[in-house]
Amino acid sequence: MPRFFIAASNIFGGTAYLSAQDVEHMRVLRIRRGEIFTVCDSNGTDYTCRINENDPTGTTVQIISSAPSAGEPSVRCTVYAAFSKGDKMDTVVQKCVELGAYDIVAFPSARCVSRPDGGALLKKLNRWQRIAEEAAKQSGRGIISKVSSANSFAEAVNRASSADIPLFLYENEHQNGLRQAISDGTAHTVSVMTGPEGGFDDDEAAFAISAGMRPVSLGTRILRCETAPVAALAAVMCLTGNLGG
Amino acid sequence: MPRFFIAASNIFGGTAYLSAQDVEHMRVLRIRRGEIFTVCDSNGTDYTCRINENDPTGTTVQIISSAPSAGEPSVRCTVYAAFSKGDKMDTVVQKCVELGAYDIVAFPSARCVSRPDGGALLKKLNRWQRIAEEAAKQSGRGIISKVSSANSFAEAVNRASSADIPLFLYENEHQNGLRQAISDGTAHTVSVMTGPEGGFDDDEAAFAISAGMRPVSLGTRILRCETAPVAALAAVMCLTGNLGG
Repeated sequence: MPRFFIAASNIFGGTAYLSAQDVEHMRVLRIRRGEIFTVCDSNGTDYTCRINENDPTGTTVQIISSAPSAGEPSVRCTVYAAFSKGDKMDTVVQKCVELGAYDIVAFPSARCVSRPDGGALLKKLNRWQRIAEEAAKQSGRGIISKVSSANSFAEAVNRASSADIPLFLYENEHQNGLRQAISDGTAHTVSVMTGPEGGFDDDEAAFAISAGMRPVSLGTRILRCETAPVAALAAVMCLTGNLGG
Repeated sequence: MPRFFIAASNIFGGTAYLSAQDVEHMRVLRIRRGEIFTVCDSNGTDYTCRINENDPTGTTVQIISSAPSAGEPSVRCTVYAAFSKGDKMDTVVQKCVELGAYDIVAFPSARCVSRPDGGALLKKLNRWQRIAEEAAKQSGRGIISKVSSANSFAEAVNRASSADIPLFLYENEHQNGLRQAISDGTAHTVSVMTGPEGGFDDDEAAFAISAGMRPVSLGTRILRCETAPVAALAAVMCLTGNLGG
C-alpha cells in the first residue's frame, strides 16, 4: 500500500492535510478516488486514508482508521557510524533504516580518512536524510530515522553512552559479546557504535569505556566498516524480538 | 596480516607452494624475506609462513605453525538468494562471505526480473566468485565460500531443505520467527532462503514448505531483497554464538 509521511500537526479532525509534493506523488502513483493508502504521522501512528471526494485539490484526505505503525521496533536503537569513504554511509543509512534504527549519527574518528565538514557535510547529511526517508517509506517504518552528525568522537560517545545499553563494537574486545550485553537487561534504548576502516584506536576505546560504553566483539571475522553497523543492528533487533519474533 | 588462499594439495612437508599469481601478489604487498604472513588451505586451516630463504623464485614458503582458521563459524550456513537486478547480488555475496556464509546459491524465482543463463550467468558467477575470494581474504575466512546457481526454484529448495535447519524467509509468515527456529535444535547446517523483489509467490511458499523448509518471518518491516539475506545471516550467526559470543 502506498505510504506517505506527514507532520503530526497536519492531521486533525479526521482529516490529513497533504503537501503539494505529496499530492504530486499520489498523481504519479495514480492513486484514484476511493483507493486507500497509508499516511504516517512520522511519530509511530499509521492512518488508513482515502482521497476526500469533496476536495478537488486533493490536499485533504479522509482518515478511515488509525493504528500504531507495525514497522516500529520496541527498542530505540541509535546507530553511531564513523565517517567512511565514498558512498558507504549511503548503504549504512539505507539498511539501518530498513532494519529499524531510531536515529543514525555519523562521527569523526582517529582513523577516518573522510572528515566532511561545513558545506560538504551539510550536503551529505541532506543526501543521507533523503535516503532515510525513502527507506522508511519502502520498509514501512512509523518514523523517519533522523540522520545527524557529531562534531567529535567525544561528542558521539557522550550521546551514545546515555542509552540503556551502549554498545561499542571493538575489534580488540575478545571477551564480551553482543548477545550477553543485550540479555543483561531490559533495553528501551540501545546505542551501537562502530568504527572506520582500520577500526577504533586504543585511546578511543579507553575513552569510550571510561564514559560507560560497553565494548563488545562482533566475532573473529573482520567486517567492513559498512557491514558492521548493519550486522550489529540486525543482531540487536533479533535478540530483542524485533526481527520476526 | 596478509592472507593467501591456496589449495590444500599445495601444502606438504612443512612447505607451502604458491602460484606465480600469489608470488606477484606478495611482491605488490612488498612482503620481504623474514616477514610472516598467513597461508590458508581453503579448508579451515591457517598456516603462519615465512618466505623460504633458499628459494630465489619465492614460490616455496616455510611453514612455522598451523591452527584452525579463527574466522570459520561453527555452523555451516548456506545462503540461497533469488536473482536480483543490477549489482545487488554483488553486495549479498560480499556481505554474506564476511558474515561467515559457507556457500551462496543464486536461483530463479517466479517474481525475478533478472534470470541470467548461459554465458551471462557464467560471467556473473565468475564475478561473484571473485568477490567472494576478496571478501574471504579481507575478513579472515578459513574457506572461500563457493558461489553457484540452481537451475530452478525446485532445485534450490531441494538443496536447501537438506540442512538441519532449513529456513524459508517468507513475508506472509507471521507466526514463526528465526529465533525460535534456531533455538529449536543443534544446528550443524542451516539454509537461509530469501526471495526476489516482490517476494516469493504463494505457490513457491507452499512447495518449499511441503519440501520441509521452515517458513520464518524477518519481522514487520519490508526488507529489500539484498538486505534480507544479510540480516538473516547476521541473526543466524548471532544466535549460534558466531557473531562475538
